[in-house]
Amino acid sequence: MTENIFSSLSLELQAESLDVLLQNNNIRIERIISQGHTSPASGWYDQEDNEWVLIFEGAGTILFEDGREVTMRKGDYLHIPAHAKHKVSWTDPDRQTIWLAVHYPAPT
Amino acid sequence: MTENIFSSLSLELQAESLDVLLQNNNIRIERIISQGHTSPASGWYDQEDNEWVLIFEGAGTILFEDGREVTMRKGDYLHIPAHAKHKVSWTDPDRQTIWLAVHYPAPT
Repeated sequence: MTENIFSSLSLELQAESLDVLLQNNNIRIERIISQGHTSPASGWYDQEDNEWVLIFEGAGTILFEDGREVTMRKGDYLHIPAHAKHKVSWTDPDRQTIWLAVHYPAPT
Repeated sequence: MTENIFSSLSLELQAESLDVLLQNNNIRIERIISQGHTSPASGWYDQEDNEWVLIFEGAGTILFEDGREVTMRKGDYLHIPAHAKHKVSWTDPDRQTIWLAVHYPAPT
């Protein structure tokens, strides 16, 4: 009935893992698990939608195209406006970092 | 730049606490902190919007009008469709329970 954000954690994470927890035409909620991974492999995320991201466990750094760098730890959350080019430039190599990402339309 | 979901926690929580972390015309993300509180005081929540709720710390029980009862613990998440009448029937009296609630429009 309920599901748990810690479920199905792989012991060895070869690549960054992404699960869609909820999706309709207004919203998409994702769980992303990384351990030392950075993304995207090259270039920047340039998203149509707004994103609200929170770290559930672990730590990671988001780099914006304008040079701004934000290191986030457990409980930290950040709003990333649509088309704010960014990438994940660092995640803790020693443990899994669990991100919760909520994608939703920019206001019209 | 970032904010933290654990910030501004009161040491003594006389009433359930609700903070809006993000709001636009498509979404509302709230942090709710309870400790032994139940809500609403009487009757049921009957919401226009869908709600996706996750427990960040602690434990709580959601009772639906149809008698279904869901006890949630750290990391558990639950989808509550619009107009599914429900209430928080129990929260852990011994520690603060931190809920993350994402309200978003039902699909049209």
